[in-house]
Amino acid sequence: MTGAGVTHSLASVPATGDLTPMDVDALVSELVAGGTTALARAISIVENGRPGFEAILAAIHPRLGRAWRIGITGPPGAGKSTLTERLVGAFRARGLTVAVVAVDPTSPFSGGALLGDRIRMESVALDSGVYIRSMATRGSLGGLATTTREVTDLLDAAGFDRIIIETVGVGQSELDVARMADTTCLVLVPESGDGIQTLKSGVMEAADVFVINKADRPGAEKLRHEIEITLGIRRGNAFRNMPAHHGFAGARRPARAAATAAADAGAWPHPVVLTAAARGDGVEPLIEALEAHFAWLERTGALTERRRARLLERTREVVERAARRWLWRDSGAEQQVRERLDELASGRLSPYELAGEIIEGLKPGERV
Amino acid sequence: MTGAGVTHSLASVPATGDLTPMDVDALVSELVAGGTTALARAISIVENGRPGFEAILAAIHPRLGRAWRIGITGPPGAGKSTLTERLVGAFRARGLTVAVVAVDPTSPFSGGALLGDRIRMESVALDSGVYIRSMATRGSLGGLATTTREVTDLLDAAGFDRIIIETVGVGQSELDVARMADTTCLVLVPESGDGIQTLKSGVMEAADVFVINKADRPGAEKLRHEIEITLGIRRGNAFRNMPAHHGFAGARRPARAAATAAADAGAWPHPVVLTAAARGDGVEPLIEALEAHFAWLERTGALTERRRARLLERTREVVERAARRWLWRDSGAEQQVRERLDELASGRLSPYELAGEIIEGLKPGERV
Repeated sequence: MTGAGVTHSLASVPATGDLTPMDVDALVSELVAGGTTALARAISIVENGRPGFEAILAAIHPRLGRAWRIGITGPPGAGKSTLTERLVGAFRARGLTVAVVAVDPTSPFSGGALLGDRIRMESVALDSGVYIRSMATRGSLGGLATTTREVTDLLDAAGFDRIIIETVGVGQSELDVARMADTTCLVLVPESGDGIQTLKSGVMEAADVFVINKADRPGAEKLRHEIEITLGIRRGNAFRNMPAHHGFAGARRPARAAATAAADAGAWPHPVVLTAAARGDGVEPLIEALEAHFAWLERTGALTERRRARLLERTREVVERAARRWLWRDSGAEQQVRERLDELASGRLSPYELAGEIIEGLKPGERV
Repeated sequence: MTGAGVTHSLASVPATGDLTPMDVDALVSELVAGGTTALARAISIVENGRPGFEAILAAIHPRLGRAWRIGITGPPGAGKSTLTERLVGAFRARGLTVAVVAVDPTSPFSGGALLGDRIRMESVALDSGVYIRSMATRGSLGGLATTTREVTDLLDAAGFDRIIIETVGVGQSELDVARMADTTCLVLVPESGDGIQTLKSGVMEAADVFVINKADRPGAEKLRHEIEITLGIRRGNAFRNMPAHHGFAGARRPARAAATAAADAGAWPHPVVLTAAARGDGVEPLIEALEAHFAWLERTGALTERRRARLLERTREVVERAARRWLWRDSGAEQQVRERLDELASGRLSPYELAGEIIEGLKPGERV
């Protein structure tokens, strides 16, 4: 569309169709320069799996790793959005820019409540140092988790200092999302006490920092005690030797002290922080516990290790998605399945036999 | 293991390792003869993706299609398990055998309640004409949905007349499971009224029969009205011309009448049935609505059409799983990813470029 010698800018990038290398360059250079419009367009392109989206992600790959990614997960109603909003405010007060990726539940039966939260969070969205994006849909070929991680990469490349990935923990995939953060924060409420024994085993282990929100309600200390017992049993860590925490008002110092003391010793103590996010209580101690975790990650080399493991996992996802696309778009498998549907329906051929034939046909060794 | 001439029976099938063709034959022949031990072993083999599981599924493929598969879905707390138990009892009273596949939620935050339901349902499990299986885990390579469908196939081959697939509708995958039934039943409660507008669009469309359970609570008629309005708007079907239903006690006749009248006309009327499963109210009208749907499926040819579409979808899943297994176990992709992790971590190579290289290497055309 542009004439020779004319600079290719964001305005020249077409709204649909394949992206040219020039389009990708224009988008990426505006995105890394902090352009919000470029960021929003890149996110849409990645979410929709529009042809060329992988070129954008490939182009930003060398720039990743600057942002600190914090996952916030927990059961519905734990107040994660309010807490996220408070964290955003606290990071902003420190002069840091913040992006929030809010992963809406995939549940077909729970629409309303979350939308309300989202609208409330708009108060911080008026700040130009804050960017909020909801992920409600799946990518066309990858799953929600893969697409969410790719959107998080875009936010990292766009220069945000902190990225909060907030997921309603209704399913394994949401937990997977939270687990891909540098620091994962599990938010519970006093009422969660009865359910703590029934948490699937991966949940406790995925959390770096525990938050008991709405801690002004009865049962917060009891829940903290249960979490600590469970952590002690499950991990046999140094946590039970930490000074006991007493009362909500005293939450600030012990959480930080525990985190610092054990972090110095090499093991991460998994602090439990009491908050009442709706009125702002406990947010500073939480920020301190989170920062202590990040400092621990950097000091011990765990950050490099975690990110390397995550990159391995990510690469597998990307390879698998590319393989799936090749299988269904280019390999002829779809045509084979359709052509032999009569045989399948009559029972003369099983899906398993046909799958075996298709895979044999794909193997390069068979054809050499 | 067996000497020459010795009949290969279920007892000869090893507990681990690869299954031989003789093992598969022994398992399948005992399974189709109604052997519960063979069925339980086959289900475990399929759930665990043990080598040879696909040979079992291939062997039963020509025998499928005898059972009528009923999906029961709805939000947590709608009383699906109680309703399922009542349906089991009603089918048993008609002399039919029933299998139940209960798909536990994948939520890491909701352990307790469902287990309680499961234990309650044990009352019908003492009946030898009933088989209950919970699916709590994912298959090793396929997802929960694929494995659930394969377990349902085993139950079909084992000769059960009715298979109820009960899913807690917490996620898209559970809805997908329910949607793969011949007849899908969506269970709501009067309290769902406020949320009906927020149901994701696929949910209403997936349901063949609507149930308002706990209909002795206030709001049941209001919810019925809302469902009917929503159905009328969304589908523009003949439903709004049906005689109005008044009151819970009168639920029996209108549901059947509506179903029969509209089914005769060719379109399925999507009846709304009011139940109070805990005390057994409305179960017979529900059975009648379900049977009217199945009769409609058979009469109109929709059954063949649905099953054919399902088979196409199933075959794609099986092919994709086989391709994934080939990719990660045999193609060398895993080794390539691991060998180049340093390049990926340093930013010199992106996952997208590596994926492109791996897929190019897989393509048979490139090697000829």
